[in-house]
Amino acid sequence: MEGSPAVALPLAMLVVFGSAKLLAEVFERLRQPAIVGEIAAGAIIGPGFLNWIQPNDLLHALSELGVMFLLFRVGLEVKASQLLRVGGTGMLTAVLGVVVPFIAGYAIMVAWGYSSIESLFVGAAMVATSVGITAQVLAAKGLIHHEASQIILAAAVIDDILGLIVLAIVSGASEGQVNVLEISLAALIALGFTVFIATVGRRTMNRLVPRVQSGLKSAEGQFDLALVLLFSLSVLAVYAGVAAIIGAFLAGMALSETISHRVHDLTAGVSELLVPFFLAGIGLQFDFGVFQNGGLVTLALVILTAAVLTKLAGCGLGSLASGKVNALRVGVGMIPRGEVGMVVAQLGLARGIIEKPIYAVVVFMAVMTTIVAPPLLAWAFKGAETGEREEHFAIG
Amino acid sequence: MEGSPAVALPLAMLVVFGSAKLLAEVFERLRQPAIVGEIAAGAIIGPGFLNWIQPNDLLHALSELGVMFLLFRVGLEVKASQLLRVGGTGMLTAVLGVVVPFIAGYAIMVAWGYSSIESLFVGAAMVATSVGITAQVLAAKGLIHHEASQIILAAAVIDDILGLIVLAIVSGASEGQVNVLEISLAALIALGFTVFIATVGRRTMNRLVPRVQSGLKSAEGQFDLALVLLFSLSVLAVYAGVAAIIGAFLAGMALSETISHRVHDLTAGVSELLVPFFLAGIGLQFDFGVFQNGGLVTLALVILTAAVLTKLAGCGLGSLASGKVNALRVGVGMIPRGEVGMVVAQLGLARGIIEKPIYAVVVFMAVMTTIVAPPLLAWAFKGAETGEREEHFAIG
Repeated sequence: MEGSPAVALPLAMLVVFGSAKLLAEVFERLRQPAIVGEIAAGAIIGPGFLNWIQPNDLLHALSELGVMFLLFRVGLEVKASQLLRVGGTGMLTAVLGVVVPFIAGYAIMVAWGYSSIESLFVGAAMVATSVGITAQVLAAKGLIHHEASQIILAAAVIDDILGLIVLAIVSGASEGQVNVLEISLAALIALGFTVFIATVGRRTMNRLVPRVQSGLKSAEGQFDLALVLLFSLSVLAVYAGVAAIIGAFLAGMALSETISHRVHDLTAGVSELLVPFFLAGIGLQFDFGVFQNGGLVTLALVILTAAVLTKLAGCGLGSLASGKVNALRVGVGMIPRGEVGMVVAQLGLARGIIEKPIYAVVVFMAVMTTIVAPPLLAWAFKGAETGEREEHFAIG
Repeated sequence: MEGSPAVALPLAMLVVFGSAKLLAEVFERLRQPAIVGEIAAGAIIGPGFLNWIQPNDLLHALSELGVMFLLFRVGLEVKASQLLRVGGTGMLTAVLGVVVPFIAGYAIMVAWGYSSIESLFVGAAMVATSVGITAQVLAAKGLIHHEASQIILAAAVIDDILGLIVLAIVSGASEGQVNVLEISLAALIALGFTVFIATVGRRTMNRLVPRVQSGLKSAEGQFDLALVLLFSLSVLAVYAGVAAIIGAFLAGMALSETISHRVHDLTAGVSELLVPFFLAGIGLQFDFGVFQNGGLVTLALVILTAAVLTKLAGCGLGSLASGKVNALRVGVGMIPRGEVGMVVAQLGLARGIIEKPIYAVVVFMAVMTTIVAPPLLAWAFKGAETGEREEHFAIG
């Protein structure tokens, strides 16, 4: 956008936030999910269409913070014990939800005549679920405590660790050697970190927070502590090999019994401001490059269809123990690839392994799976709504 | 800081936010203002000392957002009618608070042997008050409604417009011609915008917000509307020639009668997260370059002393009508130059008008006036505290 440096920041905030909320409103009136409106807003104001806003470091950072606060809030609503109870089903869901899309993506690309290593990267980009999208939809509907939701959350956490393993294998393969020992160790550290925080985090915080807080002079001491834990676990998560948002989610879980009504409200303010930057940020990545040649459009549609069906089938099969209806819900909930798929594709692009057209195909798949999931979720969960929206968690 | 791109964001958030809150706590235990601790945290982690964090675009943006939300919240507590009632005193305070430091700064620099144009720029950098610092201190003490506070706020708004005029004159002079007509027009637009929003803003919002909101589907529709108004008026303020934070302040004033308890809480969350980035961001600018040669240290101390005394004298004189004690409070409240002085100095540096050493002197003055003001404010307002902290406005 044009303008002096002084106007650039408030103008970018206005355009992204304002258009996201405007389209959320329009979509709700059309009885479509608000979240899809916010993603669509990004696509419309972005380089693909109006070109008012280009993706940049600031918007990227606001988007990352947005999804961190989103997962933190979801964590606040979740009990680790509940997640661990569905851990077995979650594990099977995650494994099948990784293996099936990976093989399908690889096979399609090879069949289309692409190199083996290029095909491996596209397969890897189809693996990881963007849990933020599903979590936002479920939280807004007050469905976080539903059994299917708990399986989705457990599977998404494991999915992130499996995604790390797949990416490590594919990256190793692209450099000519796969170090099994190193990858196993990395996976073990990631898993150990996650299980450790999930199991001892809450008890530790239950004891620690009241004691530390009572000694603090700050008027918002509990919120300050919560933010410090949120950022600390996000940092540690990255060092342990999982995504920062997994750390944010674990921080929320650890604090879920400790924090006050007030901290819930303050957190809601931050996420209400920042989450639209996450959603519009996904749309912002969208471009119409994929539509510039016919062969690519066909490939993109095939990849998209495979991305939807393989998660549905893999995760549905994995969670069949919870009943057919819940298996469908879980399958649908794991469809969105969002920002995670794009990160893998960007890595492949940066290393010169995949080319711009294939990158465009992956971005198309990532954005479109994110857009189709919310209406499918609303449909799959029809009748499951308890009527009680989560208190303090009513999101546009 | 070191690390992968994925860790950079949460790590920067943790280091800046965590160190600011830690030092705020330490300073409060030492019976010093928490706000000075947060500024000191920036100086310690910044390039001047530990060099853990360098100023960058993201931190700058978070800092700008922080001071916007800070002024927005202050605006929510302020009645335009109260400000207009002290408008005459505020005007005199602002004018004398601009003229006296400007002349003093210019005279000192010329006496020190610097060129006339360089001296004009330093004078200009000594003009504008950073109202954010004072507002934060007063709000935390529940003193926003005090008569002296109202004069400070009114004067700070006018001060910003006068600063625009001074900068336009100095910039024009550095290019060899001062266009009186153009500058008068710019000042008129800035003044017109401010008075217009201050007078009709509230009535308009009182009528508009309930009507629009009742039609919105979003659960946090009122907060979304407030944010859109905040960003819109910030953008318009910049186009009208005043600072974005003046727009944010006017947005708060316009909404002060309309918005709910809930919006207050949500706004508090955002500012609790972001204000430390504003405060630490000022400290981050500090470097010890000024101490590398003896002559510069002397000049820096002379400029700093002049900066403190001239605002105290100019603004104190201007507000004498409100009584001697209030005049002292107003004088002290107008001392901080903070980020505003630095912007002028950066402009002079970028245009090659002032050199690095003089830039360091101005930054030293800007940071130090900001650090000395809070304890002086606490002292000047001793006994004035009503005991009732502003509801929803208890800031660390």
